[in-house]
Amino acid sequence: MRESGEPESGEPDRWPGAGGPPFDPERFRREGRVVIDWIADYWASLPAQRVLSDVEPGEIAARLPAAAPETPESLAAVLGDLERIIVPGLTHWQHPGFFAYFPANASGPSILGELLSAGLGIQGMLWTTSPAATELEGIVVDWLRQLLGLPDRFRLGGDGGGMIQDSASSGLLCCLVAARERAAASGTGPCLVYASADAHSSVVKGAKIAGFPPAAIRRIDTDSAGRLRPDLLEAAMRDDAAAGRVPCFVVATVGTTARGAIDPVAAIGTIARRYGAWLHVDAAWAGTAAICSELRPMIVDGAELADSWGTNPHKSMLVNFDCHCLWIASRQTLATALTTKPDYLRTAVGDTGAVVDYSDWQVPLGRRFRALKLWMVLRMIGAEALRQRVRDQVAWTAEFADIVAADPAFEILSPPSLALVTFALRAGDEATTELLARVNRAGSVFLSHARVGGRHAIRLAVGGTLTSRADVLGAWGVIAAAAADPVLMSKARGRPAGER
Amino acid sequence: MRESGEPESGEPDRWPGAGGPPFDPERFRREGRVVIDWIADYWASLPAQRVLSDVEPGEIAARLPAAAPETPESLAAVLGDLERIIVPGLTHWQHPGFFAYFPANASGPSILGELLSAGLGIQGMLWTTSPAATELEGIVVDWLRQLLGLPDRFRLGGDGGGMIQDSASSGLLCCLVAARERAAASGTGPCLVYASADAHSSVVKGAKIAGFPPAAIRRIDTDSAGRLRPDLLEAAMRDDAAAGRVPCFVVATVGTTARGAIDPVAAIGTIARRYGAWLHVDAAWAGTAAICSELRPMIVDGAELADSWGTNPHKSMLVNFDCHCLWIASRQTLATALTTKPDYLRTAVGDTGAVVDYSDWQVPLGRRFRALKLWMVLRMIGAEALRQRVRDQVAWTAEFADIVAADPAFEILSPPSLALVTFALRAGDEATTELLARVNRAGSVFLSHARVGGRHAIRLAVGGTLTSRADVLGAWGVIAAAAADPVLMSKARGRPAGER
Repeated sequence: MRESGEPESGEPDRWPGAGGPPFDPERFRREGRVVIDWIADYWASLPAQRVLSDVEPGEIAARLPAAAPETPESLAAVLGDLERIIVPGLTHWQHPGFFAYFPANASGPSILGELLSAGLGIQGMLWTTSPAATELEGIVVDWLRQLLGLPDRFRLGGDGGGMIQDSASSGLLCCLVAARERAAASGTGPCLVYASADAHSSVVKGAKIAGFPPAAIRRIDTDSAGRLRPDLLEAAMRDDAAAGRVPCFVVATVGTTARGAIDPVAAIGTIARRYGAWLHVDAAWAGTAAICSELRPMIVDGAELADSWGTNPHKSMLVNFDCHCLWIASRQTLATALTTKPDYLRTAVGDTGAVVDYSDWQVPLGRRFRALKLWMVLRMIGAEALRQRVRDQVAWTAEFADIVAADPAFEILSPPSLALVTFALRAGDEATTELLARVNRAGSVFLSHARVGGRHAIRLAVGGTLTSRADVLGAWGVIAAAAADPVLMSKARGRPAGER
Repeated sequence: MRESGEPESGEPDRWPGAGGPPFDPERFRREGRVVIDWIADYWASLPAQRVLSDVEPGEIAARLPAAAPETPESLAAVLGDLERIIVPGLTHWQHPGFFAYFPANASGPSILGELLSAGLGIQGMLWTTSPAATELEGIVVDWLRQLLGLPDRFRLGGDGGGMIQDSASSGLLCCLVAARERAAASGTGPCLVYASADAHSSVVKGAKIAGFPPAAIRRIDTDSAGRLRPDLLEAAMRDDAAAGRVPCFVVATVGTTARGAIDPVAAIGTIARRYGAWLHVDAAWAGTAAICSELRPMIVDGAELADSWGTNPHKSMLVNFDCHCLWIASRQTLATALTTKPDYLRTAVGDTGAVVDYSDWQVPLGRRFRALKLWMVLRMIGAEALRQRVRDQVAWTAEFADIVAADPAFEILSPPSLALVTFALRAGDEATTELLARVNRAGSVFLSHARVGGRHAIRLAVGGTLTSRADVLGAWGVIAAAAADPVLMSKARGRPAGER
């Protein structure tokens, strides 16, 4: 059966691969430095790169070999291909001109936290499989809870607790399943999900995964500022309850994706409680801004009524994607819904209930040691500097919005919400679409689009690690120059409908 | 509203945080080297560490500050605490004496792949948000498909395709949802899930998340070797179909967690097809061994009947957790079930269908650039050396099993399946439990337990990055010495029932 490499009794420890041992400390030191330097050079090169890649579909794949090599290649060969083939096909999320979607900002301490996590290579699925991974996660997530001013009900130690998941989508799904199971345990009838018409796509996706039929999702209309209308929520829940349906799960969004609208959480929470529904607050993007005391009330008001509350330090808080922090008021409810412990995953200490086995709080069984990067950002950057960043970004966005508002060709579609503003050309949707396409094609900035009040909007989301006031003002320069091109309007009129 | 740090017009680019800019290339070079060296030293220190941490619940948490610092601390302070507080609380998955659960092995190239992914900080949720991340992933997952000898139906380019998810649990959930939606589109009646009694806990967990009631999960009995019995599967599906229920999703396990049993996939697939059910092959642990041609048939036979097939290079193939490779025969079916694209996530190129937006194939929206680490392992280690590792581990496990079988105090409960064997003391479950507790408490090796044929079994799973033949034989030394202690049997009889 063996073809070669039968271990000789004289040297049982020698790893026979032609490439040497899979971890050789001295080689790792040498190659690690090369990669560290490569990353430093990459960041230094970012301002000179295009933000949005302009490759065609299939172009990168066509430049890669069709099969894996049989024998080892050098790090230099890999880095050469990374540079030559991969980098031109990247959209550079860390570029100072990245204003699209929401930021996914990284930082030195966070990259080193990811590196340490990979280097340790431990797996925190159970407390036993690395107690420190579970306990550090509980502690640093509680550090963040305190910085955000979230209520004690989410503190680990009482009935609640916090954890890190990969994304707000996964966190929402877990809470939705917990709410569904809680509702199923206490009654019958079809369970319903409520969220604003502007809530994130993860609500519909999560409900779909959790087996809710499309008709079980109530999209509640928003007011003119994009906020869920509590009166309509109450009417919908009243009607559903009266018809024997079970109001099960309500999502309040703190910072909608399209325009950053902040739902009235306290009012929503009061209604949710009245009907026995689970209140989940999706503060994925806006949540971390609550580290600033002056912004806190609008973000955390009503959190004391929430059954779960989530935010993403991986968006604007300098922690590498993925890092979604989720707090729950009743960790038992979540664990009851998700725990499936066969004999091989049970441990004496786990059975006592004295420890948290975080895999019981999430979809996957395995867990990376994500707490390290959050710990390193909080310690090596510090709360004070993180607050300063938020304040700067909010101020720069306001300044940008004032400039846009002063240009008669433009109008603001939604005023700045924290560090997000949307705007359009007065000339209409086609012109706006064409303008955005041109701006992005030019390569120095990247902005994305959304529907705001039925209009096609350009979104500017500020929060990149390297993004400065000059970059924000520079984005306006690019936009204004493109809009001033007399050809734009005629081009816009000639574009095929539906393109974006 | 601002408290300090208002940007001065003269220096708009200065990042005002007391800790300096969040990414400073020169500081990153300096600190990166320190962390690289720390990891090299950590790996070099592993053989001298305890494998399984012996800290008490709450011990690590009690040694950490209760709140985050306001001002920055140094990398040296963080690494000092890592060394002093965190490392003693880790269970060292990369230790050569780690034989528990399944391995989660890492390697130099893979750690550097994770580092590059973190350093680039891009996010591949849509093709547009980094075309190279999507295309490299498609290519390297296809490299692995070819190495494993999986059929062309999973090749990207036809109707199928492959991707990387975090874990086998998440991959299975997505396939289950796709199967549920496909079944719902073509008929009515309650949908059912079939898996062997020894299938992984993720089947029950996934079904629970996807809204299947407990009664909708059919656990099919296994034969004496732990393999799902096709005759019982067929009988169950026939009865269900006759009663108007819908056989929806069948899981065939290639390598059960308890004992590495390999279900008869081809027979199961034939039955699944007969009833129109989706066949998912869970080859999470065993799958990657198919890179060896002599092991391939028993692993991939029947794959041509599968709708989805998943394996974890993060277990034994030297790729850092997380890296689950999932192939599907109909990518459209998966995308139809999971796609929820609001306006702000639609792109012109995505709308044409010419590219894959991988977020439509998974639970989360965001995606890390995981393909880099798989690419680097395949290139820098090479297929030949990866095969040699599998062959060595299989041979060492067989050698270990022969030694155990020759000891009259022990019996093999399940013969070696690839690099996994289970065994017990003939003296009974309590003695076996006590023996395992003692062996693990000693600290030089860590093995875990399972139920095999109703007996309490000790599992030896070989596959650690640093684990050599000497370590495997050394594990036997520790076990035999502990078993030889005359106090063991009396202690075992005195143990409180139910402890493990």
